[in-house]
Amino acid sequence: MSYHGGEFDVIVIGAGHAGVEAGLASARMGANTLMLTLNLDAVAYMPCNPSVGGPAKGIVVREIDALGGEMARNIDKTHIQMRMLNTGKGPAVRALRAQADKFTYQHEMKQTIENTENLLLRQGMVEQLIVEDNKIRGVVTQTGAAYHAKSVIVTTGTYLRGKVILGDLAYESGPNNMKPSVNLSYHLQELGFEMVRFKTGTPPRVNGQTIDYEKTEIQPGDDIPRAFSYETTSFITDQLPCWLTYTNESTHELINGNLNRSPMYSGMIEGTGPRYCPSIEDKIVRFNDKPRHQIFLEPEGRNTQEVYVQGLSTSLPEDVQHEILKTIPGLENVRMMRPGYAIEYDAIVPTQLWPSLETKKIEGLFTAGQINGTSGYEEAAGQGLMAGINAARKVQNKEALILDRSEAYIGVLIDDLVTKGTNEPYRLLTSRAEYRLLLRHDNADLRLTEKGHNIGLIPDERYDAFVNKKAAIVAEIKRLEKTIIKADEEAKKVVEEAGSAPMKEAVSAAMLLKRPELTYDHVTRLAPATEKIDADVAEQVEIQIKYEGYISKQMEQVERLRKMENKKLPEDLDYMAINGIATEARQKLAEVRPLSIAQASRVSGVNPSDVSVLLVYMEQGQ
Amino acid sequence: MSYHGGEFDVIVIGAGHAGVEAGLASARMGANTLMLTLNLDAVAYMPCNPSVGGPAKGIVVREIDALGGEMARNIDKTHIQMRMLNTGKGPAVRALRAQADKFTYQHEMKQTIENTENLLLRQGMVEQLIVEDNKIRGVVTQTGAAYHAKSVIVTTGTYLRGKVILGDLAYESGPNNMKPSVNLSYHLQELGFEMVRFKTGTPPRVNGQTIDYEKTEIQPGDDIPRAFSYETTSFITDQLPCWLTYTNESTHELINGNLNRSPMYSGMIEGTGPRYCPSIEDKIVRFNDKPRHQIFLEPEGRNTQEVYVQGLSTSLPEDVQHEILKTIPGLENVRMMRPGYAIEYDAIVPTQLWPSLETKKIEGLFTAGQINGTSGYEEAAGQGLMAGINAARKVQNKEALILDRSEAYIGVLIDDLVTKGTNEPYRLLTSRAEYRLLLRHDNADLRLTEKGHNIGLIPDERYDAFVNKKAAIVAEIKRLEKTIIKADEEAKKVVEEAGSAPMKEAVSAAMLLKRPELTYDHVTRLAPATEKIDADVAEQVEIQIKYEGYISKQMEQVERLRKMENKKLPEDLDYMAINGIATEARQKLAEVRPLSIAQASRVSGVNPSDVSVLLVYMEQGQ
Ligand SMILES: Cc1cc2nc3c(=O)[nH]c(=O)nc-3n(C[C@H](O)[C@H](O)[C@H](O)COP(=O)(O)OP(=O)(O)OC[C@H]3O[C@@H](n4cnc5c(N)ncnc54)[C@H](O)[C@@H]3O)c2cc1C
Ligand SMILES: Cc1cc2nc3c(=O)[nH]c(=O)nc-3n(C[C@H](O)[C@H](O)[C@H](O)COP(=O)(O)OP(=O)(O)OC[C@H]3O[C@@H](n4cnc5c(N)ncnc54)[C@H](O)[C@@H]3O)c2cc1C
Repeated sequence: MSYHGGEFDVIVIGAGHAGVEAGLASARMGANTLMLTLNLDAVAYMPCNPSVGGPAKGIVVREIDALGGEMARNIDKTHIQMRMLNTGKGPAVRALRAQADKFTYQHEMKQTIENTENLLLRQGMVEQLIVEDNKIRGVVTQTGAAYHAKSVIVTTGTYLRGKVILGDLAYESGPNNMKPSVNLSYHLQELGFEMVRFKTGTPPRVNGQTIDYEKTEIQPGDDIPRAFSYETTSFITDQLPCWLTYTNESTHELINGNLNRSPMYSGMIEGTGPRYCPSIEDKIVRFNDKPRHQIFLEPEGRNTQEVYVQGLSTSLPEDVQHEILKTIPGLENVRMMRPGYAIEYDAIVPTQLWPSLETKKIEGLFTAGQINGTSGYEEAAGQGLMAGINAARKVQNKEALILDRSEAYIGVLIDDLVTKGTNEPYRLLTSRAEYRLLLRHDNADLRLTEKGHNIGLIPDERYDAFVNKKAAIVAEIKRLEKTIIKADEEAKKVVEEAGSAPMKEAVSAAMLLKRPELTYDHVTRLAPATEKIDADVAEQVEIQIKYEGYISKQMEQVERLRKMENKKLPEDLDYMAINGIATEARQKLAEVRPLSIAQASRVSGVNPSDVSVLLVYMEQGQ
Repeated sequence: MSYHGGEFDVIVIGAGHAGVEAGLASARMGANTLMLTLNLDAVAYMPCNPSVGGPAKGIVVREIDALGGEMARNIDKTHIQMRMLNTGKGPAVRALRAQADKFTYQHEMKQTIENTENLLLRQGMVEQLIVEDNKIRGVVTQTGAAYHAKSVIVTTGTYLRGKVILGDLAYESGPNNMKPSVNLSYHLQELGFEMVRFKTGTPPRVNGQTIDYEKTEIQPGDDIPRAFSYETTSFITDQLPCWLTYTNESTHELINGNLNRSPMYSGMIEGTGPRYCPSIEDKIVRFNDKPRHQIFLEPEGRNTQEVYVQGLSTSLPEDVQHEILKTIPGLENVRMMRPGYAIEYDAIVPTQLWPSLETKKIEGLFTAGQINGTSGYEEAAGQGLMAGINAARKVQNKEALILDRSEAYIGVLIDDLVTKGTNEPYRLLTSRAEYRLLLRHDNADLRLTEKGHNIGLIPDERYDAFVNKKAAIVAEIKRLEKTIIKADEEAKKVVEEAGSAPMKEAVSAAMLLKRPELTYDHVTRLAPATEKIDADVAEQVEIQIKYEGYISKQMEQVERLRKMENKKLPEDLDYMAINGIATEARQKLAEVRPLSIAQASRVSGVNPSDVSVLLVYMEQGQ
């Protein structure tokens, strides 16, 4: 029996990392939003590593923040450690990474949701979607509530027909013994969605009291206060260290000797795992010449002794897991608290989505997060935010917001998914972005705040500060370009101290800054600003001047691409009717239905010659 | 496939309120202890009201503390509000009650466990017990770990074949959508345990932001700092209020009109519910002349907007729950976050236990908590503590610690269970204790610290302080008995001010204190102590002097009873061979196998004449 549960603009199914961003964005944009989740005690739960950020992912977190999302603010409030990675390298690969207090992270996020206007968080299990004429109309829960809405976002993560596997044991389950979501998965299949079976895994957790830290290397957080969010002004100063240790020959022998008991090799696991997040047994098999692998020991929070053993993701039987731990320096006497395991789940084939994350099959139905074939909290959050934005804009009869590959890692991620699909859990890597030098950690605000403000997620006050910052950067660059520095004693001294080649003649301060050895600080000692320049303005000035050449080269490529992006293709183009396109390309194009010539060119199986035909066809007015 | 998981002295199955006390006590007594639980994120989880204490239950918490248990310390560290109930009434009914921060309560308890020596907390689902020759040998988990031990304590709460029910919906589940424990229940039945099916229920949770508190009455915490534990010295000062509102005619009409949809009346619920913790539909039906029922709105913690609607426990369908909430002042526009529900589960018939909580059938196997047919966190914790103590003592070849009915509410609870059994979830009430005036909130330490110290759970330092306190009480009573107060001006003034009848002649300070209107403070104004007397010593002195008459009368009764308690009965007495006992009594006695004449006399169906026969039989040396 079902009853009328209420009318909403947007319904979000799930309160994982995708769901919380989707719900918050939608509600903040004024859409009356309902968020349903299986267990209110596990909102924004981290079933795997207690950390946020890192290469590529960290930049996504900054992008989420620039667009008005929550992940950055939430981790700024709840981390136990924060580190900038690759500080010695160029700005394109720098990335912030935080260790989370897993429990506080959840509670903080839940509270933010509870305090958000237009947003109703409720425990409930969705079992069906209400669909009429291929349009979404609402959802029905296990308790019989029929909630109606114009847009629905599915963010069910690893719960769809979830199955936990370790050793020869397998049972239906969501992450960490939570309930799986079975009926909804069958229902999606009945609605005609093509699904795939993926799997991911997690390592054991151990009791920190039983670790011999003396045998490991300490990994402290940064001394410099850092934040993901551009809004954060107060910083957590008491950080906890992580610890580094390694596997060794004994570990590897043990694993090799037990491969026959691994469900991955016995054929018990059907789902495809993430190549870039391999289990330890995978690593041993695939890189069998490597004498050791890194193992990071990461506390799960301030008020717990549970420690996450990063690098040891496994679905080997529990007894083997005990033995493996014992072989690792520092863990000889460790007491395991939870075993590692693999989880198999259903995901939908993401080429069934438009770049807005709306499904092609059912209007108003969006999907985001792990259900779209990705893995990772940040990937989930980025998609959740975009789905939330676009679901709300759909209700408000506004055009979808689509980020392109040159604007954001989020753009790369979504374009990859909807254009190429994925045959394993997709993880964002810097190598997936062709414009890495543009998609930096430091300039996420410059790239996206404008858009965040336009859609109503960045408040005016923050936007005004942003506009001022942008102006200050421009002004300072101009000033340095105009200020001429003579090759006098003082200049020579600065240059020499920095270990740079002697100055021969007067040059602009900007020219001087281009020298690799010289920093903004050096140069402004010779050309001091009249007003105080903020550190983040200075950082931008330095990067923009130093890398001007590379950056403008990438910008030119982007411009060229943008022309192709602007050549739109109709959603309903009949590829079968276009002569001259190869059969495989034709089928792929008909499946993906790209929205631009540029997107068409990225569809796998589509060759440049096919693109040319398409171009001609479109230019001839079809 | 199973593997050898390790040797322990004691294994505790479950980390609910019974399990955590059992594990901590056992480990602290030096037994190498393993504690297994389904989900490490839900240690000491409160599936129902976020509160600890109250009438009878609050006294149990103090008793747990006096014996060296954890509940009191844990709630002292994590409450959001603390109140002494019935301060206007006599000392026997005073009781402390705290609102818990549900999440902090869990995390604090988990951390205490993680930091305890000899105690290993591990996630795992026990599916079988290892039994040889009717002796427990260990347990086997779902992941194939066979852990061996000399004692095993089962504390599985409401998880055994748990089934959530609301409206016409029913599904296998533990509390709040957690996994149920199915195989272990069948296994216990296979081992020959007689099981019963009980049920309990919980009310909806609502978002505090949507409550109109103006329409409710505020219930602040006490201004005076209070604590459950005798060890607590620092107090939480920023308390949160609760709020009081009421049901009304519309609520009652609505419920009456929907009784046909209630699973309790449709016959869908088979389990027996707790009479003293009725659902709202039960209250409406059973007390249908009552125009209104109290509803307390209790925050679930400091960092959440979830509010527990105490008094509205229900398994009515979700849509009816929404409607019910709307009828209540202050909740007209409330947003429900989780619906209420009932849960059915298997419990074992507790007459299958010795007073030590060891099962009669399998040596070394103990059970404690909701599995024994009780309901309530405190009842669970009290049993858990005793089972932990006795399991450890068993391993150490020491005699079981058994509290009698005059020593502790815990004694009353366990004696009731093992002697009388229960045909509904058993809840502790002050009316269950015949020596209420002895089993006070204020004297739990005097009653039990000695025992706690003897068994090794109360450290010497605390014990020494206790001995000093006891001496100070005795000395101060003596002093007041000896100090004569003349009927002079000053005395007359004090007596008159207190509104007591005029003094006619000189009396001892103790005699004066017996007057109902006079307090220890009044009397010591006239007979000041030479040294500073601690407030808790003063409290004891006052109570012991004031209620001396009643107390010594109860003590006499206790002495009489104790004689009967000291007349031991052998465990294996063949009741069938004793002539003159009525058939029903004989069967009951054979089932319960009481350990003393006193216990035999409390077995239901056993009459005084049967007891006389038994006495004669025993005195004649059988
Ligand atoms: C065991 C394990 C190991 C992992 N290992 C890694 C790793 O090594 N590296 C990595 O990057 N990522 C890993 N992940 C992935 C990471 O956890 C996810 O990518 C991320 O949590 C996905 O976020 P999400 O929001 O898509 O889904 P989730 O965080 O899973 O959230 C799903 C939400 O949907 C809700 N839900 C599900 N079904 C329903 C329904 N029918 N009705 C209502 N609500 C519903 C759930 O209650 C939950 O709130 C792992 C995940 C698991 C479980
Ligand atoms: C819905 C609901 C409503 C309630 N309402 C009330 C009320 O109104 N008033 C009241 O006084 N009390 C109420 N209670 C009861 C109260 O919650 C319990 O009395 C108390 O929690 C019991 O404590 P316990 O330790 O016995 O069991 P629990 O707290 O239930 O703990 C059981 C533990 O056992 C573990 N476990 C179970 N099976 C296994 C296994 N096979 N292997 C390993 N671990 C296992 C679980 O993970 C858990 O840690 C309610 C409970 C529920 C669920």
